[in-house]
Amino acid sequence: VVDGTVSLRAVPGLPIVRPGDDLAALIKAALAVAEIDVQNGDVFVVTSKVVSRAEGRFARLSEVTPSPRARQLAEAVDKDPALVQLILDESTSVSRTAPGVVIARHRCGIVSALLLPADPDASAATLRAKLVAQLGCHVGIVISDSLGRPFRFGTVGHAIGAAGIVALDDRRGTTDLYGRTLEHTEVALADQLAAAADMVAGQAGEGRPVVLIRGVDRQGNGRAADLLRPPEKDLYA
Amino acid sequence: VVDGTVSLRAVPGLPIVRPGDDLAALIKAALAVAEIDVQNGDVFVVTSKVVSRAEGRFARLSEVTPSPRARQLAEAVDKDPALVQLILDESTSVSRTAPGVVIARHRCGIVSALLLPADPDASAATLRAKLVAQLGCHVGIVISDSLGRPFRFGTVGHAIGAAGIVALDDRRGTTDLYGRTLEHTEVALADQLAAAADMVAGQAGEGRPVVLIRGVDRQGNGRAADLLRPPEKDLYA
Repeated sequence: VVDGTVSLRAVPGLPIVRPGDDLAALIKAALAVAEIDVQNGDVFVVTSKVVSRAEGRFARLSEVTPSPRARQLAEAVDKDPALVQLILDESTSVSRTAPGVVIARHRCGIVSALLLPADPDASAATLRAKLVAQLGCHVGIVISDSLGRPFRFGTVGHAIGAAGIVALDDRRGTTDLYGRTLEHTEVALADQLAAAADMVAGQAGEGRPVVLIRGVDRQGNGRAADLLRPPEKDLYA
Repeated sequence: VVDGTVSLRAVPGLPIVRPGDDLAALIKAALAVAEIDVQNGDVFVVTSKVVSRAEGRFARLSEVTPSPRARQLAEAVDKDPALVQLILDESTSVSRTAPGVVIARHRCGIVSALLLPADPDASAATLRAKLVAQLGCHVGIVISDSLGRPFRFGTVGHAIGAAGIVALDDRRGTTDLYGRTLEHTEVALADQLAAAADMVAGQAGEGRPVVLIRGVDRQGNGRAADLLRPPEKDLYA
C-alpha cells in the first residue's frame, strides 16, 4: 500500500456462471461493459463458488455410495451419509466432530453439494494467465471462501487459491514506529484480501462473485498453500 | 455495501500517541489537516496498539513478580517468567503451550510489554461517542489487533473492540443467487473490517494506526464480544 489508499469494487454485470464457462472471458467482457480499466498490481478476488461452477465441480448426493466409515460418522453427527462421504473424499483428515458438525482438514466450507475447486491454486494460476494475456496487465488472483474459525463466531473470507501476489508477507527484520523489532513477522495478506473482498461480495445472493482490489500492489509468486499450517506445526490439529 | 464499492484510506499525519492523549481529538485534527470529510456510516479502524498507548497500558517487566505458576510455565516454554505472569494476568485460561509459545484465551497478541486495552469494547464506545460528537456523523469504530490463527500461517487483523456497527452480521433466511438458503448464516463483519484495514495500516512501523473505511455502512450496536465463541461452544477450546 504505497499511498495509504485501497479501493474495492465489485465487477458488475457478471452472468450466472455455468459449467464450462471461461471465467476470464466473462470477467473481461464485464470489465469492458462497465468501462473499468485494469492496472498492474490490481487483484481480482473470485469466490470459490463461481470457480467451482465453472469447473463443473458438482456432485449428486443420490449417486454417492457411502462407505462404512461414512455411515458410522454420519450416524454419530446426524448428517446425510452421502454428504459425509463427500466430505471424507475431499479431506485429508477429520479435525473435530459434534452433532451436526464435521470439521475436516483443508476442505471446510463445502456448501450444499458444490465442491471446492479441485486444485484452487492451479485454478487461480490458470485464471491469472488468461487475464494477464487478455488484459495486458499483471493482475493477481485470490480465490476465496467464507469459512468459520475456532474461538470466534461468524465466517470470514479466506484465500483458498492465489496467483500473482504475495500470499504470506514476511516482514522479519522490520521495526515498528517505536523502534521495536516486529514480533508478528508474517502477515497473511491473501487472507486479508479475501476478507476485505467478502465485505463487497457478500454472499453469492448479491451476485458479486468477483471483486477488484486496487492499491495493495504486492505482486509475487505466492500460493494459498503457503498459508496452510501443517499438522505437525499446529497446536490445534 | 450498497453500490458495490468500498474504500480504505489511512488517516495521515497522526502523531506518535502518548499516554493520556485524546485519540478522538488527534483523529479530528488529522482529518481537518488532510481535508478528509467524514460521512454517516464511515468506520474508523484503530489499532489496539495506539489505544493501549493512549490508555497508558504499559507494564514494566522489572516490576512484575512472577507467581510459582508463572515460573513453572516459563520454565516449560522457555520464556521470561515476568512476561508469562503478565500473560496469565491478562488471560482467562491458557489454551496451548509449546516451546516459545503461550496461547491464552482472549488475550493473544500481547506485543512486547504493551498490554491490550483493558476493555476494548468500552474503549471503542468511548472513542465513538467523542467522534460522533466532534464530527457530527454517525461513524463506527473497530479496534483491531493482528492475531495468529490455528490451521493457518500469518497474522490477520481481528476486531478486539467495536462500537456503532454490526459486528456479527446475521444473514439467516436469505438465499443465494441460485435460490439456495445460505448455509453460512453469520458473517464476522467486524473482523473483516479489521482484516481489510490491516492491509492499509500494515504494522505500526508504517505509522498508519487509523484507517477510514467508507462504503460498508452497517450501523448497529455490535461489540467485538459478539464474536467470541465461549469455550462450551468451541471444539478447539
